[in-house]
Amino acid sequence: MQAYLNGQYLDKSSAMISVDDRGFVFGDGIYEVYRAVDGELFEGARHYQRLLEGVDALRIERPREAGEGQLLAIASRLLRENGHDTGHATVYVEITRGAAPRAHVFPAADTAPTVFVTTYPFKDAAAVRAEGARAITQPDVRWLRCNIKTVQLLPNVLAKQAAAEAGAFEAILIRDDGTVTEGTHSNLFAVLDGEVRTHPATNLILPGITRAVILEIAAELGLTVREVAITEGDLGGCDELFLTGTTTDVMPVTSLDGRLVGTGQPGPIATQLYEALSSRMESLRTVAR
Amino acid sequence: MQAYLNGQYLDKSSAMISVDDRGFVFGDGIYEVYRAVDGELFEGARHYQRLLEGVDALRIERPREAGEGQLLAIASRLLRENGHDTGHATVYVEITRGAAPRAHVFPAADTAPTVFVTTYPFKDAAAVRAEGARAITQPDVRWLRCNIKTVQLLPNVLAKQAAAEAGAFEAILIRDDGTVTEGTHSNLFAVLDGEVRTHPATNLILPGITRAVILEIAAELGLTVREVAITEGDLGGCDELFLTGTTTDVMPVTSLDGRLVGTGQPGPIATQLYEALSSRMESLRTVAR
Repeated sequence: MQAYLNGQYLDKSSAMISVDDRGFVFGDGIYEVYRAVDGELFEGARHYQRLLEGVDALRIERPREAGEGQLLAIASRLLRENGHDTGHATVYVEITRGAAPRAHVFPAADTAPTVFVTTYPFKDAAAVRAEGARAITQPDVRWLRCNIKTVQLLPNVLAKQAAAEAGAFEAILIRDDGTVTEGTHSNLFAVLDGEVRTHPATNLILPGITRAVILEIAAELGLTVREVAITEGDLGGCDELFLTGTTTDVMPVTSLDGRLVGTGQPGPIATQLYEALSSRMESLRTVAR
Repeated sequence: MQAYLNGQYLDKSSAMISVDDRGFVFGDGIYEVYRAVDGELFEGARHYQRLLEGVDALRIERPREAGEGQLLAIASRLLRENGHDTGHATVYVEITRGAAPRAHVFPAADTAPTVFVTTYPFKDAAAVRAEGARAITQPDVRWLRCNIKTVQLLPNVLAKQAAAEAGAFEAILIRDDGTVTEGTHSNLFAVLDGEVRTHPATNLILPGITRAVILEIAAELGLTVREVAITEGDLGGCDELFLTGTTTDVMPVTSLDGRLVGTGQPGPIATQLYEALSSRMESLRTVAR
């Protein structure tokens, strides 16, 4: 598999970074995951905007590769060379503050950021979606800047692992005060009292691109949507729960901590939104051809 | 500078890890910093214990090098080869969950953890200590498992950078509810109402080895010590504030957010504790000879 690292295209198995890389030593970096359809990036401009916002929020010097054209060219070449330019795939981009002798303070100004890009094949969890996914709840112990897409992902790793060990697709995170925030790699929506609700885009959640698209689609479909947090107490009374994300699309949750959600079947709103999202992606495919 | 990486001794500039390393991609690893005096590790057994606890807390398979004898042998050799076996130095150890295709869930069981060890020269901040350090306060936005010494250090990086830009030695972190926790790379002690206070060793702070040693020394010296959090409101009324840490030793804070602490001079208790700590380290040196 080909990758791009700091100006070079090379086999990923040869793509090596310094042990002094601040990504490795401090988790001092950001990342982005794009969805590609037939080599075209879905909502590429929004993902790019979030990537830049992350770089700027961490005050990492914008690297040469952070120009949108440059990044697109890298992504396109990797998708092609990796045979990921037909059908669905993902593009992973990570930018760290670079390699420097270990010290918490930012390194010397001439320290070049590390830029790593690769692509992955994408396999849709269609079978899970057809039945609806199982989820568990986990305490949300993450830091308070979840709105920045950093590689500070250990709490997500541990919660997702707990889900996997429980035979679940995802862990839904709940803050100490009972606020339900999101999944470990997905945003959460609930259908409750006739409304579609999702946590507002504060510091407690990642402002998902798919979340934003789904909010748009829901409005187009005439659904009542409110960006308001649901609480742990609300979970039992939801008609539907569903997850959204770049690799999750729309995923109905039909069982939570072993209890059925709503009817225990994928709900009509999740299904409708998934279909509309898929259409948007497919239209990208048509345009590309 | 020599380093140890996954079974090999090599020049640190040649020590490279995979872009798939989970330390780089998820911050999925722990670290430890030892203080060495004349090639001997100060409180080595406690640092080793904490390292093991971190590995176990993250459920990383204990690597071969995680045997205490093995790790000591690696540290000793690096200290010697790097010329850090006379006087003071530090040993840095990092263990991550290894390199594997990117997925939040733990990788296949045969994925070897990454083990990286190197040494650094140590320069005591004696001039700062003589005058007392300046500190600033910063919001504590870290995750809720600060008791594990992981590489989830981005919030620490950002707060320490804010301190440096304010001309301060350290940032003191305060939770939303006003609880004062610790520094970005140090524990915090206060002298207040005739008592020496420090935050209890909960999930909100790192259980510092120097913190534990200082608690012992304070008790030996007959000081009244209480492990209880101070609040933001207490900060103005403290007779002394001081930081402790493996590379910080005991550092009096004489100015906080631009306001004098106590008399604005290093206080008698911080000075007494620093001297006692130094004696302990010096006794290690005598034993080694």
